[in-house]
Amino acid sequence: MANNSHSAETAATAAGRAGKIRVGVIGGGQLARMMIPPATHLGLEISVLAEAPGMSAARAADAVGDCRDAATVMQFAETVDVITFDHEHVPQEVLAQLLATGVQVHPQPHSLQYAQDKILMRQKLSEIGVPVPTWATVQNPAELDAFLAQVGGKAVVKTARGGYDGKGVRVVTAAAEAADWFAALEADPVSDALLAEELVPFERELSQLVARRPSGEVALWPVVETVQQDGVCAEVIAPAPAVATTAAKLQEAAAAIGRQIATGLEVTGVMAVEMFETLDGRLLVNELAMRPHNSGHFSIEGSITSQFEQHLRAVTDLPLGSTAMTRPAAVMINVLGGPAEGPMPVRYNRALAAHPAAKFHSYGKDSRPGRKVGHVTVIGDDTAQVLQAARAAAAEMENG
Amino acid sequence: MANNSHSAETAATAAGRAGKIRVGVIGGGQLARMMIPPATHLGLEISVLAEAPGMSAARAADAVGDCRDAATVMQFAETVDVITFDHEHVPQEVLAQLLATGVQVHPQPHSLQYAQDKILMRQKLSEIGVPVPTWATVQNPAELDAFLAQVGGKAVVKTARGGYDGKGVRVVTAAAEAADWFAALEADPVSDALLAEELVPFERELSQLVARRPSGEVALWPVVETVQQDGVCAEVIAPAPAVATTAAKLQEAAAAIGRQIATGLEVTGVMAVEMFETLDGRLLVNELAMRPHNSGHFSIEGSITSQFEQHLRAVTDLPLGSTAMTRPAAVMINVLGGPAEGPMPVRYNRALAAHPAAKFHSYGKDSRPGRKVGHVTVIGDDTAQVLQAARAAAAEMENG
Repeated sequence: MANNSHSAETAATAAGRAGKIRVGVIGGGQLARMMIPPATHLGLEISVLAEAPGMSAARAADAVGDCRDAATVMQFAETVDVITFDHEHVPQEVLAQLLATGVQVHPQPHSLQYAQDKILMRQKLSEIGVPVPTWATVQNPAELDAFLAQVGGKAVVKTARGGYDGKGVRVVTAAAEAADWFAALEADPVSDALLAEELVPFERELSQLVARRPSGEVALWPVVETVQQDGVCAEVIAPAPAVATTAAKLQEAAAAIGRQIATGLEVTGVMAVEMFETLDGRLLVNELAMRPHNSGHFSIEGSITSQFEQHLRAVTDLPLGSTAMTRPAAVMINVLGGPAEGPMPVRYNRALAAHPAAKFHSYGKDSRPGRKVGHVTVIGDDTAQVLQAARAAAAEMENG
Repeated sequence: MANNSHSAETAATAAGRAGKIRVGVIGGGQLARMMIPPATHLGLEISVLAEAPGMSAARAADAVGDCRDAATVMQFAETVDVITFDHEHVPQEVLAQLLATGVQVHPQPHSLQYAQDKILMRQKLSEIGVPVPTWATVQNPAELDAFLAQVGGKAVVKTARGGYDGKGVRVVTAAAEAADWFAALEADPVSDALLAEELVPFERELSQLVARRPSGEVALWPVVETVQQDGVCAEVIAPAPAVATTAAKLQEAAAAIGRQIATGLEVTGVMAVEMFETLDGRLLVNELAMRPHNSGHFSIEGSITSQFEQHLRAVTDLPLGSTAMTRPAAVMINVLGGPAEGPMPVRYNRALAAHPAAKFHSYGKDSRPGRKVGHVTVIGDDTAQVLQAARAAAAEMENG
């Protein structure tokens, strides 16, 4: 029961009294869906507030409603011991009301704000000394043109809020190319600026997955390489293989950044720190996601403790599990939907038959072009072989 | 929808048309519970008919009712594409009614009968030439005394039906010790005899896990060693380590038996074949379980494809997955409830903190003395080390 007597307790402490730990997840997408298996194994009661019936996490959707509506969220919170998230879209006003009643919320709103607003994130990371690309807030075209002149005529412009999977991100060479976004700022009740960043010449993109629990314990997975296509994560190779430009202490450097952000922002739960590895071997933080993340799906089979299990442990303040790899290499490939394809099960027969060692994950979604409808993971001893096997298995699913 | 047009289709074929494969599980225990994670990942819709509210598989319990009541079962079947089981207690009369409507049922009733009735099982295994202990049906004390004289004065007596975890099994030296069971036969509408078997002098007990799908594909996991305490499975070591008396081709012999039974009895789904390894290195089949089994729980982390995922693939006639080990060794230890212990979560903090690489599984049950409330699995490279780690982790849970 969510009430003021809980304010000084963790969910696990409350459960010691009640016998069950009830975790409420706001949002019914595939991240909530993939929390169901570890909740089942750990013996946690998982309950989802979904946006609509029939979503990915429908099996655990005990409530359906709009997460921007405080009454809906407060009613859901009454049924659980701790609230966490499938996404970062719950407004701070709603989160503030939750906190005022003493409900456990992880990640906490004061941490989550840095994943909700990219300008706040850039300000905070700069403040605590985390390496980031050169950036500026730009409130009008003139400021963006000035920034463009400063960074060599080409920049990345981002909306502070609401972007994901390449949406809300644009490469521009003139402020006019962001004219619509500047126009939209006029009517925006929250944001009054866009974020402008240098276009970092990078060797590749990496992601450092980290978990932190309220009592302060931090766990870090090996840093992974992420391959994007059209702004969407397509492949993840764990651990990130060494490349020609890679500094000797890549893992240590990535882990130090992950730990610094998790601690500095008081993150509770799992966070993905997306980074650029520059051509000269430096790491610059690109984005933060304060929840299980596509770059961590490999951990379901690839790690002793998956990001989904770890997130549940972290938000209930249970001790964190080992993040060691189960095998030396793991590769995850996203499966996208398309108009020529039927629902995933149609393609199962051939894909499962041809790839008995690949692990197929379906998100229970209707297939639409470009939509992530599932993923495939392969684990093994040799990165090149595992990568080849995972690509072949994913292709069989996608080109069915 | 279950109707006659399905009779020639598999669940996967039906799903190709409908877009979803709906698996119905009769029984709401921990086996049904542990099917939820792989159903989630594979994108199968799992639905459980539970005996009561709040059981282990409550998260998927869309129906609650008595599986011996045909109307209850038929109504449940209307909502799914294929029916499978958490246990072997659905009466053949109910199964026959299901079949008559064209519902897919796996394992099929004509196979399941051998897991429901130990006398039928002994007859069938003897008929197809599978090695079993010396046995006889005994209808009265005189017949049991005659059998005792034949096998050296000591025998195992079993009720044909309803036994599990050591219940319905008794070692006797005189027929008088089974007098109550003979008396109960008088009123038994189904059984008219007990099963008497020689007391096999065995080195140890083994279990061969096997899966078979309707189209005939068979998959076999490595044979495992099972350690029983008070007739209940306590530890499972995968693969079974070699012992002094072990024949050179133990795995081949165990696999051959598993394959012979799966094929000979037309099993569909997962089956555990429990065997004795005799002091002179022979294998004799003790029991059959036609469902995921305690001796296969190691496969959740220990195998590329767990027994629960494989069972779902098999009953929907999807291609079977790799049964290779993820690591050279896996050990599973059951966690039993006791009066001195609170619910599992109470013990989580210390156990999880002390054993970050152990995987804890809670069945969501109230703790009662001797009741299986969960299990712990550890995987690794060295059997002795893994065994030690698993025992330490399980002890932490049990002695909390």
